[in-house]
Amino acid sequence: MIRIVYLLVRPESMTPSEFAEECRVHYDMSRKVPALYKYEVRLVDQEPSDTHVAYLDIGPFDAVAECWFENRDKYDEYLASDIRKEWFEHGKTFIGQLKPIYTREIH
Amino acid sequence: MIRIVYLLVRPESMTPSEFAEECRVHYDMSRKVPALYKYEVRLVDQEPSDTHVAYLDIGPFDAVAECWFENRDKYDEYLASDIRKEWFEHGKTFIGQLKPIYTREIH
Repeated sequence: MIRIVYLLVRPESMTPSEFAEECRVHYDMSRKVPALYKYEVRLVDQEPSDTHVAYLDIGPFDAVAECWFENRDKYDEYLASDIRKEWFEHGKTFIGQLKPIYTREIH
Repeated sequence: MIRIVYLLVRPESMTPSEFAEECRVHYDMSRKVPALYKYEVRLVDQEPSDTHVAYLDIGPFDAVAECWFENRDKYDEYLASDIRKEWFEHGKTFIGQLKPIYTREIH
């Protein structure tokens, strides 16, 4: 499974509630995107800095999203899809800054 | 469900393979931690900067982890647990810097 985590920051011009609404629209749109096995987007609630190890002082963030793909062929199908392209166009309307993190299993 | 995402950076003194091994140990230890509904830790594979919106220039990271709790009572039980405390002590041996992000559902 290919899994990509995204950190999202809203545009300065957008309120948290406007951003949350666009996240809901983006989630609804995701269900029609071909070859996207699963999509999640969650809002950031708290970013506590009282960690038990050294705090990594980054942020604030507004949302954390994740995309799942069954394999590389499905990911390529997703990239080529016009519906996926429309979905990314919607992303441009409410994502101010984006940090993608491609992950792999520990085992 | 309470879900907390963590971004992890390894200590400068630790190689990627040593860090990966400690992530595996940490995952194995997680299975005995009371009231922890689910735990995942994944290694960072790629951090591409060619995003379709403005790139959020942070990182690099070494792992992304996530903790799930069924509710606040379970989370408090987890916090009070000696096994959880031992787990955090292990965390101190291989996590150089840590960024916690408490998330909430969009709906």
